[in-house]
Amino acid sequence: MSNPMKIIEIKRSVFADNNADADKLRAELRSKGVFLLNLMSSPGSGKTSTLIQLINRLKTDLRIAVMEADIDSDVDAVKIHEATGIESIQLHTGGMCHLDADMTRQGLAHLPLQDIDLAILENVGNLVCPAEFDTGSTMNAMILSVPEGHDKPLKYPLMFSICDLVIINKIDVLPYFDFDLDKCREYVLQRNPKATIIPISAKTGEGIETLAQYFINIIKN
Amino acid sequence: MSNPMKIIEIKRSVFADNNADADKLRAELRSKGVFLLNLMSSPGSGKTSTLIQLINRLKTDLRIAVMEADIDSDVDAVKIHEATGIESIQLHTGGMCHLDADMTRQGLAHLPLQDIDLAILENVGNLVCPAEFDTGSTMNAMILSVPEGHDKPLKYPLMFSICDLVIINKIDVLPYFDFDLDKCREYVLQRNPKATIIPISAKTGEGIETLAQYFINIIKN
Repeated sequence: MSNPMKIIEIKRSVFADNNADADKLRAELRSKGVFLLNLMSSPGSGKTSTLIQLINRLKTDLRIAVMEADIDSDVDAVKIHEATGIESIQLHTGGMCHLDADMTRQGLAHLPLQDIDLAILENVGNLVCPAEFDTGSTMNAMILSVPEGHDKPLKYPLMFSICDLVIINKIDVLPYFDFDLDKCREYVLQRNPKATIIPISAKTGEGIETLAQYFINIIKN
Repeated sequence: MSNPMKIIEIKRSVFADNNADADKLRAELRSKGVFLLNLMSSPGSGKTSTLIQLINRLKTDLRIAVMEADIDSDVDAVKIHEATGIESIQLHTGGMCHLDADMTRQGLAHLPLQDIDLAILENVGNLVCPAEFDTGSTMNAMILSVPEGHDKPLKYPLMFSICDLVIINKIDVLPYFDFDLDKCREYVLQRNPKATIIPISAKTGEGIETLAQYFINIIKN
């Protein structure tokens, strides 16, 4: 693809009713056959490294593009493109702590949607604000990493209640942290009884095949 | 102290000019001889466990109270009180992603300020929004934990630029992560050349004495 790395400066939205706008965007994407994944997490939980592993496993099955939202760096978009070869654009939020549906649409306008099955939005690293704004995504997912602790679903309830997929990352360091995977599952399911929980290590590759199959099943069926 | 654990529901501020209000609160606290520390970090970087270690070391030298801001749980305030015996109140932000000066003042109103040298505000776990709102604190500090990665000052520039103290926590797990302490120092100092950087492990206690001395020097002199 030409011009694989773009930096887009996102403008504040003018729409008062983000929920209605998000539903509209979701319908537009459905009509185009694009599955939009909104991936959220704390800073440093491993969104980018998880995406690199997942995309390298999925890219023969699905046509994928990534939008990396960040306050003002472009390290993630460069990293994703270099490590996977897929189109990756950087969305600068200008200090904003989240993306809403219109901001997401501004990013999507720079992607060749007719050639894409799976568009991934890597949201701003933040467990609070992104949970409050519907991006128009087909699915919300989040990553919780082992060093953050198993109590996070108790402390950031909205984030866990809106995510249908919770990826538990960095399970390779489980021996070094007081992280109780069973308790974590219990707390996640308290917030969203329908949530799927998939433990992985983006470092060792453990669990990536399970995660890839999960997306293939959902997107291809 | 009687009634050591209170939960305070914080109301949205009515002040248009938070910066002016923060300066006013700072002056009020100075006149009362109270040092207000605003402690920020990502979710799960170890704010509460660091505070427990630090308070247990400092409580013979300083009279301390803690305000734990959280979206809606009270686990941290209970933990701090049980582990240190000091007064610890919980501030519920009602979904808000940060505290400003007036919200901080609402919390302080529940503390016996005449008997306190050091009031600690544990802000909402978030590297974005809390950096944008001056709480009226005497000092801003933040914790970056090793598993989050040394590149965070590049990605959350405002947070690192407003903190005069950056505590690098979880150094006990340095062998298991690709965290470059020298690069981290370099990136932190790019954001704030005056920042003090103190590596610690709240788990093993390493570095806690250095951190305690840092606060004793600043507050007692």
